[in-house]
Amino acid sequence: MDNGHKLSVMILNKVEKANIEPKITLIGAGPGDPDLFSLKGVKALKTADVVLYDANVNEALLCHAPDGIPKVYVGKRSDDESFSQDAVNRLIIDYALNYGHVVRLKSGDPFFFAKGYEEIDAAESYSIPTEIIPGISSATGVPSLQKIPMIYKDMSESFWAVTGTNSKGEISEDLYIAAKTKATIVVLNGIEKVKEIAAIFQAESKNLLPVAVIQNGSTPDEKIVVGIVETIAEIVEDKRITAPALLVFGDVVSLHPQFQPIRDFYEIIAEEY
Amino acid sequence: MDNGHKLSVMILNKVEKANIEPKITLIGAGPGDPDLFSLKGVKALKTADVVLYDANVNEALLCHAPDGIPKVYVGKRSDDESFSQDAVNRLIIDYALNYGHVVRLKSGDPFFFAKGYEEIDAAESYSIPTEIIPGISSATGVPSLQKIPMIYKDMSESFWAVTGTNSKGEISEDLYIAAKTKATIVVLNGIEKVKEIAAIFQAESKNLLPVAVIQNGSTPDEKIVVGIVETIAEIVEDKRITAPALLVFGDVVSLHPQFQPIRDFYEIIAEEY
Repeated sequence: MDNGHKLSVMILNKVEKANIEPKITLIGAGPGDPDLFSLKGVKALKTADVVLYDANVNEALLCHAPDGIPKVYVGKRSDDESFSQDAVNRLIIDYALNYGHVVRLKSGDPFFFAKGYEEIDAAESYSIPTEIIPGISSATGVPSLQKIPMIYKDMSESFWAVTGTNSKGEISEDLYIAAKTKATIVVLNGIEKVKEIAAIFQAESKNLLPVAVIQNGSTPDEKIVVGIVETIAEIVEDKRITAPALLVFGDVVSLHPQFQPIRDFYEIIAEEY
Repeated sequence: MDNGHKLSVMILNKVEKANIEPKITLIGAGPGDPDLFSLKGVKALKTADVVLYDANVNEALLCHAPDGIPKVYVGKRSDDESFSQDAVNRLIIDYALNYGHVVRLKSGDPFFFAKGYEEIDAAESYSIPTEIIPGISSATGVPSLQKIPMIYKDMSESFWAVTGTNSKGEISEDLYIAAKTKATIVVLNGIEKVKEIAAIFQAESKNLLPVAVIQNGSTPDEKIVVGIVETIAEIVEDKRITAPALLVFGDVVSLHPQFQPIRDFYEIIAEEY
């Protein structure tokens, strides 16, 4: 069954309400901790007439919106049905025209990936005013919480966030170039492909490069594992790290306290041979 | 005169206070708008005994801290004297030992650059507990506000933030590799070198690549200029864009409304020749 269709039919029962001023505000819900949400986001939610929210958005944030307004989940369903982006775009527009101020909560920063732009673009084609309220991107915020800097002295002069799953469902070609550089590399949406991704670094003889994998960053369920390129896929499997999770490749990961025993181990090995 | 020294002497007058529990919380103050600050940051500021804040931190945030506590500016001085990082580290530790909870406000995300880690590392060498509260990095938040996505369909599958001024004061070598890729590239601390940076892209025959330069992102003084690699240095000079500003290179910049007339112009040119 097409949920997007069902919902769009549902809202065809147009609410008769005077002076509707359609507006869409896209807000970054941050990495997961509901306190890692901006004051500006709270203010916008207070004036919402409808809230549409994605997967990985903490539902605790909905408390900032008025009671009794529609709060609609448009993320993936547990049965793996999901709203198509077109259905979501249509829903946003329908709600804005019928209710007024639609607040769209997206995890992390709302404009990091393509979908935020697509929603805004669709809305603007209906002359609906739009506003963006940035959020804390998981790509920077989650390593920060783990005290892993992005740029650090002679370890790294840049930070490269790459999608592990591009619009074709493949590992981005950029990762093959990234693996050749000294940049700190954060791979988003790549946990399912950790073995293939580690192999890209191995092909560049970076077997000993430090790697951290962080699941559910900033939430009470946060899990982190730290290793090196050579071992990370095995550790991820052993510790059952699953999505949502991000991978951090780079010498900066050696600054994490959990890396110390790994360094000690390799120093012992190096002395022995 | 050495301000760091002066201040460290000043606080040698140790406050006699029972039950001091030293703690240091590093908070990301975001890109500039005081409402682009997290609820978690507000909560931490409410329990501060001292606040130390950097340049580019909006002083409006200090209102969340209790009245009457020391709120100390440790950024660059207008006369170009500045606190050395060692002086700041020492100051943080002295304040924590003498006052208790030191809140350290840093612009953007506090762990993006090296200094956050250095401060935490220095504090932990004194066994002072530390906590990080991530903030909205300018690198992602400022382009978001301008409705420029980082990753978009076949335009870009990654986002690479590079420092325009590394610890040696030079343009990062990474930028020479970045200019060869399809990544969206954000250059931080690079506005003074916009001509040299544009030349790196020109050397890769990317004269027509779209570029945006955003000064004072998210504040009432925000200024944006949009152009192409070939023209951006001249536009920056004409429009007197100065630090703090970031540069965004990439096809995604073509999605910005100000790019439309540029595209039209080049399409006309292309037809003529």
